[in-house]
Amino acid sequence: MDDTSSAAPAPAHAGGAATRADGRADDQLREIRFTRGWQDHPAGSVLVEFGRTRVLCAASVTEGVPRWRKGSGLGWVTAEYAMLPSATNTRSDRESVKGRIGGRTHEISRLIGRSLRAVIDDKALGENTIQLDCDVLQADGGTRTAAITGAYVALHDAVEHLRTRGALRGEALTGSVAAVSVGIIDGRPRLDLPYEEDVRAETDMNIVMTGDGRFIEVQGTAEGVPFDRAELDALLALGAKGCADLTGLQRHALGLGE
Amino acid sequence: MDDTSSAAPAPAHAGGAATRADGRADDQLREIRFTRGWQDHPAGSVLVEFGRTRVLCAASVTEGVPRWRKGSGLGWVTAEYAMLPSATNTRSDRESVKGRIGGRTHEISRLIGRSLRAVIDDKALGENTIQLDCDVLQADGGTRTAAITGAYVALHDAVEHLRTRGALRGEALTGSVAAVSVGIIDGRPRLDLPYEEDVRAETDMNIVMTGDGRFIEVQGTAEGVPFDRAELDALLALGAKGCADLTGLQRHALGLGE
Amino acid sequence: MDDTSSAAPAPAHAGGAATRADGRADDQLREIRFTRGWQDHPAGSVLVEFGRTRVLCAASVTEGVPRWRKGSGLGWVTAEYAMLPSATNTRSDRESVKGRIGGRTHEISRLIGRSLRAVIDDKALGENTIQLDCDVLQADGGTRTAAITGAYVALHDAVEHLRTRGALRGEALTGSVAAVSVGIIDGRPRLDLPYEEDVRAETDMNIVMTGDGRFIEVQGTAEGVPFDRAELDALLALGAKGCADLTGLQRHALGLGE
Amino acid sequence: MDDTSSAAPAPAHAGGAATRADGRADDQLREIRFTRGWQDHPAGSVLVEFGRTRVLCAASVTEGVPRWRKGSGLGWVTAEYAMLPSATNTRSDRESVKGRIGGRTHEISRLIGRSLRAVIDDKALGENTIQLDCDVLQADGGTRTAAITGAYVALHDAVEHLRTRGALRGEALTGSVAAVSVGIIDGRPRLDLPYEEDVRAETDMNIVMTGDGRFIEVQGTAEGVPFDRAELDALLALGAKGCADLTGLQRHALGLGE
Amino acid sequence: MDDTSSAAPAPAHAGGAATRADGRADDQLREIRFTRGWQDHPAGSVLVEFGRTRVLCAASVTEGVPRWRKGSGLGWVTAEYAMLPSATNTRSDRESVKGRIGGRTHEISRLIGRSLRAVIDDKALGENTIQLDCDVLQADGGTRTAAITGAYVALHDAVEHLRTRGALRGEALTGSVAAVSVGIIDGRPRLDLPYEEDVRAETDMNIVMTGDGRFIEVQGTAEGVPFDRAELDALLALGAKGCADLTGLQRHALGLGE
Amino acid sequence: MDDTSSAAPAPAHAGGAATRADGRADDQLREIRFTRGWQDHPAGSVLVEFGRTRVLCAASVTEGVPRWRKGSGLGWVTAEYAMLPSATNTRSDRESVKGRIGGRTHEISRLIGRSLRAVIDDKALGENTIQLDCDVLQADGGTRTAAITGAYVALHDAVEHLRTRGALRGEALTGSVAAVSVGIIDGRPRLDLPYEEDVRAETDMNIVMTGDGRFIEVQGTAEGVPFDRAELDALLALGAKGCADLTGLQRHALGLGE
Repeated sequence: MDDTSSAAPAPAHAGGAATRADGRADDQLREIRFTRGWQDHPAGSVLVEFGRTRVLCAASVTEGVPRWRKGSGLGWVTAEYAMLPSATNTRSDRESVKGRIGGRTHEISRLIGRSLRAVIDDKALGENTIQLDCDVLQADGGTRTAAITGAYVALHDAVEHLRTRGALRGEALTGSVAAVSVGIIDGRPRLDLPYEEDVRAETDMNIVMTGDGRFIEVQGTAEGVPFDRAELDALLALGAKGCADLTGLQRHALGLGE
Repeated sequence: MDDTSSAAPAPAHAGGAATRADGRADDQLREIRFTRGWQDHPAGSVLVEFGRTRVLCAASVTEGVPRWRKGSGLGWVTAEYAMLPSATNTRSDRESVKGRIGGRTHEISRLIGRSLRAVIDDKALGENTIQLDCDVLQADGGTRTAAITGAYVALHDAVEHLRTRGALRGEALTGSVAAVSVGIIDGRPRLDLPYEEDVRAETDMNIVMTGDGRFIEVQGTAEGVPFDRAELDALLALGAKGCADLTGLQRHALGLGE
Repeated sequence: MDDTSSAAPAPAHAGGAATRADGRADDQLREIRFTRGWQDHPAGSVLVEFGRTRVLCAASVTEGVPRWRKGSGLGWVTAEYAMLPSATNTRSDRESVKGRIGGRTHEISRLIGRSLRAVIDDKALGENTIQLDCDVLQADGGTRTAAITGAYVALHDAVEHLRTRGALRGEALTGSVAAVSVGIIDGRPRLDLPYEEDVRAETDMNIVMTGDGRFIEVQGTAEGVPFDRAELDALLALGAKGCADLTGLQRHALGLGE
Repeated sequence: MDDTSSAAPAPAHAGGAATRADGRADDQLREIRFTRGWQDHPAGSVLVEFGRTRVLCAASVTEGVPRWRKGSGLGWVTAEYAMLPSATNTRSDRESVKGRIGGRTHEISRLIGRSLRAVIDDKALGENTIQLDCDVLQADGGTRTAAITGAYVALHDAVEHLRTRGALRGEALTGSVAAVSVGIIDGRPRLDLPYEEDVRAETDMNIVMTGDGRFIEVQGTAEGVPFDRAELDALLALGAKGCADLTGLQRHALGLGE
Repeated sequence: MDDTSSAAPAPAHAGGAATRADGRADDQLREIRFTRGWQDHPAGSVLVEFGRTRVLCAASVTEGVPRWRKGSGLGWVTAEYAMLPSATNTRSDRESVKGRIGGRTHEISRLIGRSLRAVIDDKALGENTIQLDCDVLQADGGTRTAAITGAYVALHDAVEHLRTRGALRGEALTGSVAAVSVGIIDGRPRLDLPYEEDVRAETDMNIVMTGDGRFIEVQGTAEGVPFDRAELDALLALGAKGCADLTGLQRHALGLGE
Repeated sequence: MDDTSSAAPAPAHAGGAATRADGRADDQLREIRFTRGWQDHPAGSVLVEFGRTRVLCAASVTEGVPRWRKGSGLGWVTAEYAMLPSATNTRSDRESVKGRIGGRTHEISRLIGRSLRAVIDDKALGENTIQLDCDVLQADGGTRTAAITGAYVALHDAVEHLRTRGALRGEALTGSVAAVSVGIIDGRPRLDLPYEEDVRAETDMNIVMTGDGRFIEVQGTAEGVPFDRAELDALLALGAKGCADLTGLQRHALGLGE
């Protein structure tokens, strides 16, 4: 565990009563930590923590691409998400034992892969594959957004690894990616929901953005009552703020300066 | 096939060159048709067509609810989406033969179920289950949004069926649901994308709304380059317009007056 | 849906009280309809209806053959049968969700493939594969015989499609195929059983024949008490009569003259 | 292995040149052997041999019936067929390793179960289940008909076992069952085909009959060219002759007198 | 069944009361039988019996090796173990029907493969594969050790078959393999446990040895209370004695002189 | 991560050249660390490290026992072992994605469960279930023995948790369990093999012992050439030494005094 970076950015505004159980302001992230090099074997390996949520993100590099992509000169990035049985409040059954992957797991794996491919230049990557594995070691809400945010850091390290080996044909990363959850709880838009807020949210949104403030993915779901355009706008603004904060923390963890 | 309702709403504005392959204005739906009672057995059965896309939506009613919900007094609505192998351009393999359901199928099934549950009052439904089956008979883009829009009509018929049997404890439907895809093609926001536009879209968004204009689900994905807030706003407005048009067509098909 | 052909041949003899629930004579088919070109994508696509039973039969053409047949110069025809969950009286579970195909599905898929291969000249077909998909959209008895009868029409269209493309090495179809169910109900041999007769049949037989009156497959099963040779002979004669009627209707649907 | 019964009935007529590889007349069975009590644990266990084909047929008795039949007062008989990997000419893969049962296996299992249920009085059996397991230890053609013929003997022993325990409510067996394959090879109808004849047969038929000469199941398939009614009649007569011979051998093996 | 070899070696010492249910001395094997050539198709096929335990061991030869070993010049030996549903006291479910192989089956298959590979010279075998199938036809304890002991004899016959065909590059077998179970029952170390002793054993050990008295595998498990070093030593000595006896019987069955 | 215990016991004897790559004496353990309370949710959660091998061991408690044990008054302890794809040198495929659990995983899961049940008093545990999950986060040899050793500590914490809740009927733990691998490398018996020694070992043994020096499980395998009794004795002695050292470290980690 060679390099741990941690920071809880100060609240941008302290207005209003701090009504959150953990004392945060509505627009404040949980304590965020990136531990690079957590594992020895993968080219990139990052333990990311959003408060009590902990996801181990590994980026494994292999030469060559899947069969359907051979000879194209293009690289491939894909992702798998999973959760340890012991990660959740009540133990969940192991998908390998059940013999099939659940819909939620599939959905999140696809989201992570799509999000990271948005900042990859396939040509510059050449015919190399980067496989991201995001394994949730402890779940306290926001596991998919933590996974994306940590996977970007692991991906960055894997790309550097390829660069060192002279395997790239240019700049394979066209930008950075961060993701955060936002929601409306008790009528208030809030950033980065832990489990106990997540289950109470009337509306729940996951936002994935590039480091320069553009959207990669926006997924909003009415959990209870449908939401109107004003609520949607408030959540989009809050999510943009959170992604910008996370981008700064990622840059710090990667030693890139903020 | 007792009742077919069909309409292609006139373009709201004819401004700009009609550059779409099928001659539609950018904010115009494809020809939409609902054929109620397409099958004999389910309580609700609707063949919905969005242009060449055809989805058979069935709503089957069973007394009782899944085990985890027994004794709660609450009903349950769930959905399964699937595609015939022959529905697509190139034949796709049968998931029953592969022995596992793909991630995309899982994801869409979950989206349909969530969308319809948003307008169901579980208490009024009582301990009854409504199972929605959305089987794509022909695919030409927008199958998931057609499925949601058609499934709502089938759900409506199934709820009427329950009401006739005196099985409801109040008004089980709290509103209506419609869904549409929007995207940016050649830099222009467009409504209701057929397959050939879908594959060319830079950004692709699916919007699910209630009949009174609130959001149930918003899913936007950057296919090529990330999108900015202005593009997002344009797509949200266009989607809202499309859902409103679809709501009118649903009401017409159900004989409710527009 | 470019071409619908429909006909209920007049009863050959009106002797005896017409005791069938739908008023047919014992040796009379249900109303038979073929709708060619029901789907846009497959080379052949036919919606076949035997009364309320509706099966969508698609014939998809691909260049090349399965690995074990490569280099043989011979073509391949295979079939898959399936049923929509909403097709039956009571909703049936989806085989893709169960993760395995049931014995009945396997058995019927194999029967359809075998039946159609009996009229295919593998050499003339060349190294092309025709995949038949028979999806039951509504079930009211006789789905497997309707599937075979419709699949032949779809196969015919697919072969014409190959001929147009110059991909054949001769006459790939050596004859036509039709199939029908017969059974003994209340002691009377009857043709083309709907569901309510099927469940009451003492003996149930499916007969697959060529257009020139020879047998491809004969499957008779004692559901209740075993049957004797006289009953077997009566069923064989009735089945031959039904297949001859269906052959005429197929020729009409294909515009070949009767 | 307490009780072995074996017999090859003399040819009924010696007309025509004996052209079969094993020297049999066209209407002659292979050497048939029944070894009762081959295993210690099941209530009935019979090793049946049709020439080199060897099938171990076990009938296991359990109190109670499957859930869907509980409280009906009726018994249940079901069957599973399988083949050892080492039973065939070239080793075949194990279905447990492949993780799925093939169509052929399903089809034969269903056929065996149906055939034996035809001579079972469900009421007299009471709420008991008899599970038949037919495991092919060596395959040389006709495994399914050998399995049915042997399974009847095992079933008989299991029913006696239940009678001894006072668990029956009357005569549970209403008759006996035997099965045989027939086919047309080099233009000649032949009885009880070994593998090398089976692969060369133009038409192949399996016939299942009761001891009193009625049909339970007739399955005829044109392997090469379709067959006409005269050929069908010849095969039916030959099959009836073979089943009658097998019935005598079964009675002998069971010590019932012929 | 051309060649049956059977022997129950006399007890080495008759000291102490013979308290075993079957009258054996503590260090005495059950009656052991090898029937070579039980099946026609595999290169080696042996029915091995340890008392009432019967395992059919087949050794099938194929040219070539699995993909990961191609071009290495080395051969491959692998094994699969399975049990007929009817082999056990109470019928066990079929793993092919369950769709997955149980842990116990996996474990024993791997043990058999490992044990036999210990006496194979991969180079001398050349790029040939020998697949061992050990199917338990009847189970009365010690099925895995009987399987290994019988599989060696089948393997020997398969190697001779390859030698006859001139397919070997030297002596492929470097020794022989035998296996036996030992355990502590009622405080006494005993050899070759039948089922009724196996379930009562406090400690249970399986020992696999070469013909020249070295160990290939030692697996000891405390079923009840943990065991000490003295008990372990007693079991190891007893197992070595049993393996030596089995080696003699194998040589006799193979006609090699003892 | 509230409680980390770490220790590398000094070499017992320094005789002979220290030829191991990591500088250890032949009978010296790698650096061992136990971090209790690594996760928030399970009753016991321990990150155990044997050098670079890291296994997260969780013990989850649920009221009640599996169906087959209900009403017995006895508790149940079971275990599942798995490995993250990124844990190994080269990324390994995810078993949930493959849809089946491999033989090695099954085998180790069963070993862990058996080992811990050896020190559990089922009666004292009452009808409670403790599920152990051992997930390998990083693999460098000896993962199964690390898993058992760590799982014991997690089990201890879970039992304390039950005691605090008054759910036990006596002392549920009858002893402690530790496990270690030993092997012969370059002719020298060595303790606690890392991956690079493991692959080179001629003989490989896993030993599971109680804290008072008795054996629970002994599994020795000849990887290359078979081993003789003297080698076996040397490995048993070395394993006993290693388990005794581990017992001391477990006691220290649990604050029990050594």
